[in-house]
Amino acid sequence: MSVRDGVFITLEGGEGAGKSTAALRLTTLLREAGHEVLATREPGGTPGAEAIRALLLNPDTELTAMAQTMLHFAARADHVACVIRPALARGAVVICDRYSDSTMAYQAYGMGVEIAAVAALTRLIDLMPDITFMLEVPESVSKSRLNSRGAASDRYEQMGAEVMARIAQGFRAIAAAEPARCVVVDGTEPVEVVVGRMREVIRERTGR
Amino acid sequence: MSVRDGVFITLEGGEGAGKSTAALRLTTLLREAGHEVLATREPGGTPGAEAIRALLLNPDTELTAMAQTMLHFAARADHVACVIRPALARGAVVICDRYSDSTMAYQAYGMGVEIAAVAALTRLIDLMPDITFMLEVPESVSKSRLNSRGAASDRYEQMGAEVMARIAQGFRAIAAAEPARCVVVDGTEPVEVVVGRMREVIRERTGR
Repeated sequence: MSVRDGVFITLEGGEGAGKSTAALRLTTLLREAGHEVLATREPGGTPGAEAIRALLLNPDTELTAMAQTMLHFAARADHVACVIRPALARGAVVICDRYSDSTMAYQAYGMGVEIAAVAALTRLIDLMPDITFMLEVPESVSKSRLNSRGAASDRYEQMGAEVMARIAQGFRAIAAAEPARCVVVDGTEPVEVVVGRMREVIRERTGR
Repeated sequence: MSVRDGVFITLEGGEGAGKSTAALRLTTLLREAGHEVLATREPGGTPGAEAIRALLLNPDTELTAMAQTMLHFAARADHVACVIRPALARGAVVICDRYSDSTMAYQAYGMGVEIAAVAALTRLIDLMPDITFMLEVPESVSKSRLNSRGAASDRYEQMGAEVMARIAQGFRAIAAAEPARCVVVDGTEPVEVVVGRMREVIRERTGR
């Protein structure tokens, strides 16, 4: 069976865009429709990738932006080979909270790594999503949702407003450059509306 | 000042080839000659890279060969940016025990990652050594030196004879492809002879 027997869906967006909640609801909807759904997230998804995640999110370990970029792709290589590809091969719908677009937006647009470097690493992984939902929320919404999560914040939640703005611009640039893959969704709508729109797009594009 | 004010020297070879001992003696010789020498090793060399090293060498964390490759380059990105480039910029001689050639030999030749992938990652780091000493020893010597190190062995010391043979072939292929950079040294000679030969090459090629 080819990898394309399954459907690979990613959810992307800045902090507090509502990705995790939407991923959970979308998973339930698709399971209720009888599909095998693998719900996963990045960085992480395998024991090795989770160990890399711990390193990446710990703000006390200083790492250059390029080192962070390569760590994200190291975790991704493990995740894709051990979890995502096997699930797609058996025909599952894979819903992944963050993927390569996040590395492009955060490390390239946000932190100054060359776009060409992230693109080269993305080619090495050699697996692009069938559909990517880009959740967009204004900065004020992102901030208030983040604040409501409480104290402990990881390396990426600690970034300043200027970096956040560049990251948001990065996601918009990716969506504009790849309209066949990326669907921009208004993350300020109620989650039922957001997920309903996603469900519709999946049906239209894949027949699932 | 350009990066080329310093001299970047790497020592490469399989397990038990005598790299670490030679690096130590070579450092002493060059310091006695009045040069600033930065002696370092990979994976590692910065707090972030050492954390990645711990993950890489721990045989209990399963990681695909591609994930290991990217972890090596993540550690290298940090090491190059924070330690090696600054030392070269101030004119130091940098002696590094293992570098990109090890990743090419171990992960590509030894473990099956595509050569083109490791080459692409090497280009992203964008810093090649001025001189690379390739220490060659027959498999029997490598094995007996490894055994004399005692019990605790890391992920790479645990590899079988077949993989070791492919790694050795990888180092030979790299040396053959890049004769202007790589100098093959017979690691079965006494360490004084090995280091004397290195010292001579450094003088000839760099005037140091």
